[in-house]
Amino acid sequence: MKMSKPPKGIAEARRKEVLEALRQIGKSAYDAIYEGRFPEISLPSRSVNNLVYDDELKQFILGDGRVKRSSRNVKHIRPYTQLLWLAFFANQLVNEERTSTLRDVFYSAQAFNMEFTDQSESDEIITDLETALMKAREDFNVYPDERSAIFGNMVIEYTKPGYEGKRQDLSSHPDGLMIGPALTTAEFIETDAEIVLAIEKGGLFTRFVEEKVHERFKALLINTAGQPPRSTRYVIRRLNQELNLPVYIFCDADPWGAHIAMVIRSGSANSAHLRELTTPSAKWLGVYASDIEKYKLPHDKLNELDIKRVHELLKDPRYTEKLWKEELETFLKYKKKAEQEAFSRYGLTYIVDKYLVDKLEQAKSM
Amino acid sequence: MKMSKPPKGIAEARRKEVLEALRQIGKSAYDAIYEGRFPEISLPSRSVNNLVYDDELKQFILGDGRVKRSSRNVKHIRPYTQLLWLAFFANQLVNEERTSTLRDVFYSAQAFNMEFTDQSESDEIITDLETALMKAREDFNVYPDERSAIFGNMVIEYTKPGYEGKRQDLSSHPDGLMIGPALTTAEFIETDAEIVLAIEKGGLFTRFVEEKVHERFKALLINTAGQPPRSTRYVIRRLNQELNLPVYIFCDADPWGAHIAMVIRSGSANSAHLRELTTPSAKWLGVYASDIEKYKLPHDKLNELDIKRVHELLKDPRYTEKLWKEELETFLKYKKKAEQEAFSRYGLTYIVDKYLVDKLEQAKSM
Repeated sequence: MKMSKPPKGIAEARRKEVLEALRQIGKSAYDAIYEGRFPEISLPSRSVNNLVYDDELKQFILGDGRVKRSSRNVKHIRPYTQLLWLAFFANQLVNEERTSTLRDVFYSAQAFNMEFTDQSESDEIITDLETALMKAREDFNVYPDERSAIFGNMVIEYTKPGYEGKRQDLSSHPDGLMIGPALTTAEFIETDAEIVLAIEKGGLFTRFVEEKVHERFKALLINTAGQPPRSTRYVIRRLNQELNLPVYIFCDADPWGAHIAMVIRSGSANSAHLRELTTPSAKWLGVYASDIEKYKLPHDKLNELDIKRVHELLKDPRYTEKLWKEELETFLKYKKKAEQEAFSRYGLTYIVDKYLVDKLEQAKSM
Repeated sequence: MKMSKPPKGIAEARRKEVLEALRQIGKSAYDAIYEGRFPEISLPSRSVNNLVYDDELKQFILGDGRVKRSSRNVKHIRPYTQLLWLAFFANQLVNEERTSTLRDVFYSAQAFNMEFTDQSESDEIITDLETALMKAREDFNVYPDERSAIFGNMVIEYTKPGYEGKRQDLSSHPDGLMIGPALTTAEFIETDAEIVLAIEKGGLFTRFVEEKVHERFKALLINTAGQPPRSTRYVIRRLNQELNLPVYIFCDADPWGAHIAMVIRSGSANSAHLRELTTPSAKWLGVYASDIEKYKLPHDKLNELDIKRVHELLKDPRYTEKLWKEELETFLKYKKKAEQEAFSRYGLTYIVDKYLVDKLEQAKSM
C-alpha cells in the first residue's frame, strides 16, 4: 500500500515533544530557585509494589505511588543533580542530533565532572529520566549496543541528519538492514506488506528471505536476534500501530522463546513506565510446546533451569491467557524443548511450505 | 577508486571450485567401490600436536600429520558415513544456492536418517569437511547465526540468487548493512575508501558514522559486534586482499579486546586448516593498555579472569611481536582496563577528532 497520508514529520514531532519535556524539567528548577524554593522533581515510583498488570494494555504499568528527589534533602542531592545533568545532556544529544549508548552516557558524565560510581548508577538515572518524561531513552537518543535486522518490500525515508529525505528499500539487502537509530526514526513511505513476522534466529531469517516469504506471504521480516533490543520492539510497534499490520512471532519451543514473544507483546516489568515498547495485538504463532508432539520434532529434554523458568512464568500475570498457560503446562507435561531449526528434519523448505502456512491459517481464528 | 578490472565472477569461480572438490570426494568413494576397495578419506589432522604457528602467514597451520576415515574400520564407519553425507548435503546446498547454519545441518541430517548424537558431533564433521576441502564452511553455504555490519562509500554487486547483478551502496543505510551470506559473496565494484576500520562495538560504530569518519578518513567501517563472526573476518580479508586496503582494528583495552584484534589478524587455533579467515597485515591500533595512562582514561581494575587471560595470551606464539607483548605486559603492570567509550570522558567527538587522528598517524610508522 502507498500510505494514504504519509505520516510525515512524526520523528520531528517526537523530537519537539522530548525537547519540550526536557525544557520543563529545567524550567521547574529555575522557577523554584527564582521563587526561593529548593528545586525538586517528582516521578512515578518503579518499586515492585507499584507495579500493576494492566489487562487492557497487556503490560505492567506503574501505580499511583510517586517518589520525590529534592535538593533540600541531603540524601537526594546526588541523584537529583545526576538527573538534572542527564536531562541537560539528553537535551544536548537531541539538539545536536547525536546518539549515545548506556555505556557512553556513563563516561560522558565524566566530561562534566558528574560523578557516577559505576554504570549501574547511571543506568538507573537514565531510567529515572525515562520515568520522569514517560518516554523511552531512544527518544532522547540513548540507544542499545545490540542490533537486529529487517527485510521486506517497504520504502522508508530517513529523518536522521545527513540522510533526511533519502529513501531506502528494505528489500535492497538480502542479509537485512540493521535496526539502529536511523531505521528507528525513519518514516514509512510505501509497502505492499500485509503482515510482520518477527523471528528469533538469524539462520531462519535468512531461510525466510531465501524462500521469498516476504513475497509469498507479503511479509516484513524481522530478525530479533534473540530477545529483541528495545529499538526493535519499538519498530515492531510502529509497524503495527502506524500501518495496522498484524504481527506474528516465531521463536524456539522453550520457555525462553515463549518469553521473547511475550516481551514483544507485553513488554518487560522494568519498562512498566513506558507504553511504546509493546504490541498488545501481536500473536505468538510458535513454535509451541504442543507443536513438538504435533510435528514430531527432534527435541531435547528440558533441563532444571528451563523447568524453573516455566514455573516462574506460570506465576506471571502476563501468562494467564489460555494459549500461553496451556503451552507452559505442556512444557511441564512432556519436559521437551525444540528449536526452530528442528523443522529441517523434514527438509529445508518444510518450515515455510507447510508449518508457516498452517500457522498463518491458525492465526485467522486467534 | 573504480576497480580497474572489476573482479567479476570470483563468487562463481569459488562456487565451481567447491563443487569440484565435493565431486572428488564422491568420485573417490565410487572409484573405490568399483575397484573392489573399501572407500576411505584422508585428511590433515587437527589435533593439538599437529598445530604449528607459521610466522610468515601469521597464523596457526596444520603440520604433516594426517588422519584416515576408512569404511573398512568398524570404528570409522560412522564418521566416514557422516562426512560423506555432509559432502552430499553441502553439494545440494551449493547447487540449490540455499544457505544453512551449524544448527540447521544437525537437524537436516535427520531428514536423511543420518544420525548425530548432538550438535557437537555434527559441528565436528563440518570441520572435518572444511579440513578435507581446505575451505571454510561458508564456501559450502553453512553460515553462522550471528552477524555484524558494514558501512561506507562502496558499491557492491550481489551474486546471490534472485539478486544477481543488483548493486548496493554500502553507505545507503546509516545503521549499517548486515554481513551475511549475500554480502560475503558480493563483488566489490567501486569505492573511494582508502582504509578499513574494524570496530568492536555498535555504539562506537554509530558514533563513527555520525561523525562521518567514512568521508573524513575515507574509511569503510565494520562493526565486528564483539569477536567477529567468521563471515566478517572473511569480508575483512577480501577488502584487504582484493582492494589492497589497509585494515585497522579498534577494540576495548582489555585482553579480550586485544584478542579480537589478534583473531582478525591471525585467525584462531581451531581454524588452522583454513587460510581465508586471516588478514596478516591488519594492524591493531588500540585501545592499548598504554593508552589508558597516555590519555588518562577512566578505567576499571583487571579482575582475576582478565589477569589469567593475559597470562594465557603471553604464552601464545601469536603474541611474541614487540607491540603485542609489551601491551600485554602493560596490562599486568598497571592492572587496568578501559573501554572504547571511555574517550567520551573528553566529549563525544574526541575519539574521532583527536584519538583516531593520532592513531592513524602512528599507523604510518608501523
